[in-house]
Amino acid sequence: MMNRAIPLTTLERFPDYLNYLHDLNCDKGNRISSRVVATALGLGEVLVRKDLAYTTCYGKPRVGYVISELINALEEALRCDRHKNAVIVGAGWLGRALLSYGGFEKYGISVVAAFDNDSEKLGEICGKPIMDISKLSEGIKKSEAVFGIICVPAQQAQIVCDQLIKAGVRGILSFAPVALNVDEGVGVRYIDVAANIAILAHSVI
Amino acid sequence: MMNRAIPLTTLERFPDYLNYLHDLNCDKGNRISSRVVATALGLGEVLVRKDLAYTTCYGKPRVGYVISELINALEEALRCDRHKNAVIVGAGWLGRALLSYGGFEKYGISVVAAFDNDSEKLGEICGKPIMDISKLSEGIKKSEAVFGIICVPAQQAQIVCDQLIKAGVRGILSFAPVALNVDEGVGVRYIDVAANIAILAHSVI
Repeated sequence: MMNRAIPLTTLERFPDYLNYLHDLNCDKGNRISSRVVATALGLGEVLVRKDLAYTTCYGKPRVGYVISELINALEEALRCDRHKNAVIVGAGWLGRALLSYGGFEKYGISVVAAFDNDSEKLGEICGKPIMDISKLSEGIKKSEAVFGIICVPAQQAQIVCDQLIKAGVRGILSFAPVALNVDEGVGVRYIDVAANIAILAHSVI
Repeated sequence: MMNRAIPLTTLERFPDYLNYLHDLNCDKGNRISSRVVATALGLGEVLVRKDLAYTTCYGKPRVGYVISELINALEEALRCDRHKNAVIVGAGWLGRALLSYGGFEKYGISVVAAFDNDSEKLGEICGKPIMDISKLSEGIKKSEAVFGIICVPAQQAQIVCDQLIKAGVRGILSFAPVALNVDEGVGVRYIDVAANIAILAHSVI
């Protein structure tokens, strides 16, 4: 089961399951059913059961999953147990927001530094350095960062992306609203804040 | 065709099509084929054709879509032509990043103000006010804001969500990693930055 490729749409729901299970105010040795999870997250029960079948945790008919085992299995799929470093490029408001954000740790991710080409932005936030962009490659290699977070304007995103990959980054998260070309084996995901509101607009306006 | 419900997964690709078409360096009176769009965005050609069939723009076999017509049809689906106001709750780094971000305008969205309960954060950024949270309801009603962007910690997200909806907001974008309960007819989307990197981790670590 463990080696079966997990569909992306399933994987994208794993953090939601994990947040929900972590926030449960009960003994984590208890069991929970797929029905309860489905209701809490507004998902179909069959979908939840199918999703969780991609983990290494087996649910028992009628009684469900041991919560702690399910948490472990989801964390294993998301590689939470392995420590990973990330760097940010672009230290505007957004880059600085992410540099100071504490929410990465639960996934085993440390954001170790940010880089910018504006000398006025260099310095430190929450004990983490904001360095000149010329030190990007060196910084990635030293910290063995595997992830790069792109917080620069769209026109500069591909150049930054190329630099990140060249320096050894294997996963890119980009906030720039432009499709990036990446080498085979490099993962890329996008967060487009404005697009998310526009998608909401379709159903509520 | 126009009234056929657009599947969410299709709708989620509309901003990508739109960005790609806007960035094309050519006469927008030209035609473009689904194959060209598919290749540029790394999608399947059949998928692109199916997606675009949900718009009001008809492609001609072999020659494709008039670019400007396709842009208009995508913008219509995303309600870009209608002006909409949004407010932010939580004026930390992230809230301030979004208050100063210029990327909303292309979707017809104006972020008009932010609100916070920390008096030290009140003031102005890019000409937009950061006001005390006690003025949230009044601010939403005055500006006729239909969207609320939640940039507060997870523990406060539901309370803020309830306040936003009570004041008339119909679409919520939340950065807090917690599932929100919303009234029927209210749309909600989530952006979980850390989760996005964890999802990348699964395939590259």
